[in-house]
Amino acid sequence: MNESLLVDGKRLWDSLMTMAKIGATVRGGVCRLALSDADRIARELFLEWSRTAGCEVHFDAIGNLFARYGGRNPTRAPIVIGSHLDSQPTGGKFDGVYGVLAGLEVVRTLSDSGRLTEAPIEVAVWTNEEGARFSPALLGSAVFAGQLALSSALDCRDCNGIRFGDELERIDFAGSREASYAAHPVGAHLELHIEQGPVLEAHGSHIGVVTGVQGIRWYDCCVRGEETHAGPTPMSMRRDPVPSTLAIAQRAYAIAQARAPEARATLGTMAFRPGSRNTVPSESRFTIDFRHPDALQLAAMDRELRDFGASLDIARTPIEMMEVFFSPPMHFDPRCVSAVRYAATSLGLAAEEIVSGAGHDSVNLARIAPTAMIFIPCRGGVSHNELEAASSDDVVAGANVLLRAALALADG
Amino acid sequence: MNESLLVDGKRLWDSLMTMAKIGATVRGGVCRLALSDADRIARELFLEWSRTAGCEVHFDAIGNLFARYGGRNPTRAPIVIGSHLDSQPTGGKFDGVYGVLAGLEVVRTLSDSGRLTEAPIEVAVWTNEEGARFSPALLGSAVFAGQLALSSALDCRDCNGIRFGDELERIDFAGSREASYAAHPVGAHLELHIEQGPVLEAHGSHIGVVTGVQGIRWYDCCVRGEETHAGPTPMSMRRDPVPSTLAIAQRAYAIAQARAPEARATLGTMAFRPGSRNTVPSESRFTIDFRHPDALQLAAMDRELRDFGASLDIARTPIEMMEVFFSPPMHFDPRCVSAVRYAATSLGLAAEEIVSGAGHDSVNLARIAPTAMIFIPCRGGVSHNELEAASSDDVVAGANVLLRAALALADG
Repeated sequence: MNESLLVDGKRLWDSLMTMAKIGATVRGGVCRLALSDADRIARELFLEWSRTAGCEVHFDAIGNLFARYGGRNPTRAPIVIGSHLDSQPTGGKFDGVYGVLAGLEVVRTLSDSGRLTEAPIEVAVWTNEEGARFSPALLGSAVFAGQLALSSALDCRDCNGIRFGDELERIDFAGSREASYAAHPVGAHLELHIEQGPVLEAHGSHIGVVTGVQGIRWYDCCVRGEETHAGPTPMSMRRDPVPSTLAIAQRAYAIAQARAPEARATLGTMAFRPGSRNTVPSESRFTIDFRHPDALQLAAMDRELRDFGASLDIARTPIEMMEVFFSPPMHFDPRCVSAVRYAATSLGLAAEEIVSGAGHDSVNLARIAPTAMIFIPCRGGVSHNELEAASSDDVVAGANVLLRAALALADG
Repeated sequence: MNESLLVDGKRLWDSLMTMAKIGATVRGGVCRLALSDADRIARELFLEWSRTAGCEVHFDAIGNLFARYGGRNPTRAPIVIGSHLDSQPTGGKFDGVYGVLAGLEVVRTLSDSGRLTEAPIEVAVWTNEEGARFSPALLGSAVFAGQLALSSALDCRDCNGIRFGDELERIDFAGSREASYAAHPVGAHLELHIEQGPVLEAHGSHIGVVTGVQGIRWYDCCVRGEETHAGPTPMSMRRDPVPSTLAIAQRAYAIAQARAPEARATLGTMAFRPGSRNTVPSESRFTIDFRHPDALQLAAMDRELRDFGASLDIARTPIEMMEVFFSPPMHFDPRCVSAVRYAATSLGLAAEEIVSGAGHDSVNLARIAPTAMIFIPCRGGVSHNELEAASSDDVVAGANVLLRAALALADG
């Protein structure tokens, strides 16, 4: 490996800023919803840049793009560097697009220096990562990894009833290639992304060596009681769902706090019916979001929550806790994680291991290929926001880590 | 006092059922919103029945009706028996109208037997008690008791923008008499009502001797934090408004429970912003309803709640608790309460003292005249509901208590 090879930081930054004009919002962010005209224009620009850098490009049946750069041994499965070009409705300049353009910068750097790797390198754009327009999120990578049927994905509709498949054809990105790792083996997958959290910045780290993704359990909870007037009914004669609601909610926090700092509990929604200040509610509804990087701990959190619910007065105020989503913790491939760690260390960058709290296409890719991720800090941990920002130093550092890790895997 | 005088129970029940046809709903309740055509028809029927019973009738500038029956000493201020004819949109057959028609039955009974009291007796219909169409509730009695300016009351508008004063003229009930106790002294006020709570039924009591009305404090609470993604942000780095919200809510319950059975705490509404299951809320909003019959205890509840709020981490998640309504506890006149208690006892009825949890016109009247109330049980404590029900035995028993208490006050 050529230890002295470094990306062209200015070119990367300029590419990011050029791409940020596509779907730019007045407040400095971008709105580039999946399969919109802005998404089409961004895809076309990416393909043009890739061809100019010497890549062969193609796209598959769900619109995932691949820009392939050489490889002395074309029979080896490619090292894929992937992320996404779509954004939230009021998204920022870095989420997703940074990983794609850093991948392109890796290829451009290799191309400029005439450097060929053993295995080919491919830059991938996964379709509809955000899920902001079409649900589910991570759609393109899910189809590719066999987690979602192509036909189901094509039949998704946006809030205006527009079908995913129709929109994909409209923007001319419905490819003829099969959207599957079976038809398109992946040697390894690397993804570079802003952290979307505050940890690296708070610790003064410039690189996050991502070891995996937190497991998630989502619950829809409901406590039922009886609607009565707040005045005439003594508290002992009420069937008030609120005390059990408060107790469960507090216990959810306590369960996570007992497993600090890894565990997370979030209560994002709560509502009482009928919702009148002088009426004892007939029911409360709330959600719990539990996260932990360790499967056994996440299972223990689930058990404690359920045991606590069962210990309450369920005859008087019946409790329902329905798990509506479960995503097991993902541990990235040790060899890929090592390549990232070594790349950061060899560049002299302040790096720390971190577990991703958010989902990424790499979760799907990790099911079918050795995978790792690299994080850089983002200002204040702010993401999914037009004010999303990252320093150019960190942006360039992350791309150099990506370059070295990709070289190590492609030549290894 | 003629101890043997009793009301005509069948006539009272028939009058209630006849009145229940005005605004009857298919589910067996009534919809007789204030100043609607149904309200007008009910008022006209009441006036007709009152005239037939030998009363002189009139109404004042806010539409309060008065049916006056004799009195050997016309210079004495009348004993007023009042309640209301308006209902909730899906109200029952008893709330309000029972108190009015039981007053009429008292007069009919006296008239039939040729019995004259020392002081005159007046049956009053207070305008817009419910507040369901025009806010505030207890409007007619508030104007009469000098708690609300006539002009403000006339300018109230319903949800369609229709002005109270215009509607009062439309139904021909804008009287020329001044709507004020100054122009219309009240010797005492008695009100007979269904309990609207479950206590009498649960205790097997047939009569509630109402000693007063609970004091009420309403709070609008808000805890502010910072919106962050549920995954990437460790709990220790969040500014999550939910833990303080849960703590305050639990403390509100504990404050009331420490003063059982009189005190009440109700959390009728709670909402988080932005209200997404995987986003730490930027703010929570909720309401607290505190009630206690004793002013010092209600003040102590307020102080404890505020002290607790101030003890939380208000630098990290600022807390606002705004008192938006305060109604001090009302203690009814001991002589009037005694008259009710004695009437119930002399009739051999199972009676108990009770504090009203709901507001009534008597709260306004008690500010300007000796006042008491009589409760009878309602089935399951259900009120403001088409299924509202009371037994005919209790209905008749309550009217007999009213008759005896009124005679004692009018002759005493």
